[in-house]
Formats: sequence, structure tokens, C-alpha cells
Amino acid sequence: MARVVVSVMPKAEILDPQGQAIERALPRLGFDGVLSVRQGKRFELEVADTVDDETVARIAESLLANTVIEEWEVARVEVEA
Amino acid sequence: MARVVVSVMPKAEILDPQGQAIERALPRLGFDGVLSVRQGKRFELEVADTVDDETVARIAESLLANTVIEEWEVARVEVEA
Repeated sequence: MARVVVSVMPKAEILDPQGQAIERALPRLGFDGVLSVRQGKRFELEVADTVDDETVARIAESLLANTVIEEWEVARVEVEA
Repeated sequence: MARVVVSVMPKAEILDPQGQAIERALPRLGFDGVLSVRQGKRFELEVADTVDDETVARIAESLLANTVIEEWEVARVEVEA
């Protein structure tokens, strides 16, 4: 069994209202020095060893990300016995 | 300037309906072997060098995560000149 993390973030050119709302709130809460904030999704999948990265990529493309406005990245975190 | 990633996930004991919905959809889409799916949030912050990990932790606690039902993790990704 392995754990795979799929990170899905808005594409750079896409407006990120949630990220901007946080960005504007930070100075009001006394946090300075944060130049930009982008908010996306993180999926943690536990998969059988039969599930390879190419399959996870197809899962990301078809179900986890809206590839018109989002980009995704797969990272295999750890393999358990 | 540095880039910091804050990952926010539902605590293990908390029901994750979004993750479960994906888990149930995968076999219908022909993807077998995925044992569990958990969905959370990922924040990418670009911060000035004056912003240390302790400050990012306070940002995560006060604004990015609902610490009653979520746990968070900070990772400093890369430092640019």
C-alpha cells in the first residue's frame, strides 16, 4: 500500500478570490510580510501497490482537478508494507 | 523571499464527505485499488524573509485551519534570492 498526495492549484493566470481575501485579511490581523496567498486543494489517497503514477494522473485529470482552470501535481509520500 | 506551503487536512476522526464521495465514484469510473481518499486545502504563501515558521504557524492556526476539526502542516518549499 502507498500514500499518494495530489495537489491541485488554480493556474497562475486564473483569479483566486479566496487567496486574495486571505491576503487582504492578514495585515488586519497583524501579520505583515506575506506577499501573496494562493488556495487550492490537497487529496491524500491510500492506494494498493497495483495503482501506478500513470493511473493516479488519470484520476487527477478526470476527477480531482478542473484542468481548464487548475493544474495538479502528484507526489508519492511513503510506501507501507 | 520564500515560498511556504500550508497543508490543512480534516482530522482522522472527522467525517470527510467529499473524500468519501470521490472514493465511491472511482470504481464507477473504472479506477480500482484506491483504498481511501481524504480531501483538504493547500495554501501557497510567498513570504518575505522576515516571516519565520513560527509566524506562519500562527497564521495557519488563526486563519487557514479550523483547529477544532482540522490539522495543519507547514513546509518551506524554496528560498529565492
